[in-house]
Amino acid sequence: MDDISYMNRVLQLAKKGMGCVSPNPLVGSLIVKNDRILSEGYHAYFGGPHAERVALLQLSEQERHNATLYVNLEPCCHQGKTPPCTDLIIESKLHRVVIGTLDPNPLVHGKGIDILHKSGIQVLTDVLKNRCRKLNEPYFKYITTSKPYVTLKIAQTLDGKIATDQGYSRWITGESARRMVHRLRKEHDAILVGAGTVIHDDPELTVRMVRGKSPKRIILDRFLDIPLKSRVLHHPESQNTIIVTTPKVSHDKIKEIKEMGITHWSIESDSNGSIHFPTLWRNMVTEGIISVLVEGGKEVLTSFMRLGEVDRIIVCMAPIFFGEGLSVFGDLGVHTPNEAIRLKEVTWHRKGSDLMLEGRF
Amino acid sequence: MDDISYMNRVLQLAKKGMGCVSPNPLVGSLIVKNDRILSEGYHAYFGGPHAERVALLQLSEQERHNATLYVNLEPCCHQGKTPPCTDLIIESKLHRVVIGTLDPNPLVHGKGIDILHKSGIQVLTDVLKNRCRKLNEPYFKYITTSKPYVTLKIAQTLDGKIATDQGYSRWITGESARRMVHRLRKEHDAILVGAGTVIHDDPELTVRMVRGKSPKRIILDRFLDIPLKSRVLHHPESQNTIIVTTPKVSHDKIKEIKEMGITHWSIESDSNGSIHFPTLWRNMVTEGIISVLVEGGKEVLTSFMRLGEVDRIIVCMAPIFFGEGLSVFGDLGVHTPNEAIRLKEVTWHRKGSDLMLEGRF
Repeated sequence: MDDISYMNRVLQLAKKGMGCVSPNPLVGSLIVKNDRILSEGYHAYFGGPHAERVALLQLSEQERHNATLYVNLEPCCHQGKTPPCTDLIIESKLHRVVIGTLDPNPLVHGKGIDILHKSGIQVLTDVLKNRCRKLNEPYFKYITTSKPYVTLKIAQTLDGKIATDQGYSRWITGESARRMVHRLRKEHDAILVGAGTVIHDDPELTVRMVRGKSPKRIILDRFLDIPLKSRVLHHPESQNTIIVTTPKVSHDKIKEIKEMGITHWSIESDSNGSIHFPTLWRNMVTEGIISVLVEGGKEVLTSFMRLGEVDRIIVCMAPIFFGEGLSVFGDLGVHTPNEAIRLKEVTWHRKGSDLMLEGRF
Repeated sequence: MDDISYMNRVLQLAKKGMGCVSPNPLVGSLIVKNDRILSEGYHAYFGGPHAERVALLQLSEQERHNATLYVNLEPCCHQGKTPPCTDLIIESKLHRVVIGTLDPNPLVHGKGIDILHKSGIQVLTDVLKNRCRKLNEPYFKYITTSKPYVTLKIAQTLDGKIATDQGYSRWITGESARRMVHRLRKEHDAILVGAGTVIHDDPELTVRMVRGKSPKRIILDRFLDIPLKSRVLHHPESQNTIIVTTPKVSHDKIKEIKEMGITHWSIESDSNGSIHFPTLWRNMVTEGIISVLVEGGKEVLTSFMRLGEVDRIIVCMAPIFFGEGLSVFGDLGVHTPNEAIRLKEVTWHRKGSDLMLEGRF
């Protein structure tokens, strides 16, 4: 096998930590000698041992000697919750280290590689760099901006409607597209919706159609309008639900909600009446949430887009038309075609009879 | 080469007649003997010799004897503008005839094949049947319903808008999508738009970005609102423009328009205020128009969709968002998701940075 094939395996291993390592990155690692894989490792849970350490410590000193290590992210060189991986690599007298991408964390960025170089270890970087970056998009954003990575998910008709003129939206897309949304949910630290969606659709906001852990649920509900009987408050996992209101809401209702085990965040509105995003981001990353899937409704989708707080959009488009109905977005401040908000890196594929389109900003 | 490969060549030949044969079908033909193509032909212009005749009459009696004829549509067996092709095939003492699809024309359907069979000629049908049918979709619809084949073309944003909130629509899609629209135009007998589009955008509605003949232009203008200086009335080919109004419009303006060489059709509105479609179809097919590309605007697109008068939709979707703006359709009578108007046989491909989606009803 060549470096590319080994790195492909590393990426598979890294994904095993999905849903358990945030705000740490997903990392996988392989030890190879004489073209044979001696051991494998991945970062399995937040605060747990790093992938390189897991792979290396399965081997004897002699096995490690002169081996090659493959890892999708630059090995750390600072003392965190665990000791620096570069120390262990150097002690292990490895011959070569093959890295997918540099760590954007300024405590590491390039320094990990330098330390290895200076110890006489061969280092190759940027192997499958783009795929390695894409795997950890939330980590890359979080570590450089202290904000979570935001994905908008929209289920719409071909003519851009998310509900009929009478407000019906179940279901626009088919079963395989809906299953894909459940897969998306489990890849995120949190799902976020507005109060209107809870009041109108009463969703569970859990992972059901595929196996996997449900992410946290964040409800933006400025005036604490959602009914206490909403399913999202009564689900077995509802202690993972967070209600975000402005400070001016009924203390009695807040008390009741807290007694149900729900977390409450009180955040001021900004001058436009939107939630104050900097505070929301701060609360989220403090909670270990560095990736969030925003599922609607129109008001929430519009405010995220209007304020430029979106990294990626996933549109599930059914080959149907509603005509009049609820449009995806309200006012985005676009008045001429060249002011339009444009997606980049657009890809699409078929899911059942629907079209799944993904793009970034 | 095998039957499939020969039929592929036949389809290429048939397309050479595009824009010149309506309301006749596009037909190509090959004569093959000892695995060698002896001659080729296609139906080149309305009223001209049929493809089989063109191919056969290039050859001597001896060459034709025992040869195989390939043709995408069942040979005719009735006297039309030209004598029956089956007569010539039988006289030619061909060994075998390979046919793409039966002719839906009740004067021919299956009878052409029967006559050949009875003369002892081997007949194989349904070779590349679907592609052969698709090539002549307008002819198939016209011959069975006496109505033209209607394609709606929509250039829209991902969120289903055809103009911004201030009415701007130039340009939503990129150059390669717009070039594809010009290619589409030349494949149709006519382009149709509403008066609003002429007043607002003042388009030329000609084929420019690719080589080819411009189709006829039909303007639905119930109250004869379009300005006399509109480009569509002053183009060198404007004698190919047809204005459709209700009977109650200014006779003076009609006279002026006719003096400019423009055709005028006076058609009553139906009870909903829409144009009376049965009369419109009748006028169109009388004029030899059996395929029409409806390019907008919203009111026209909506009335065609609402009345179920659409066979195919082509959506050119740019990866951009307008937010508020002009939606593609108005009221389509859809109030719940299962009443939605659903496309079938949906396909899509990339054109530059845009997505081209095609579906049928």
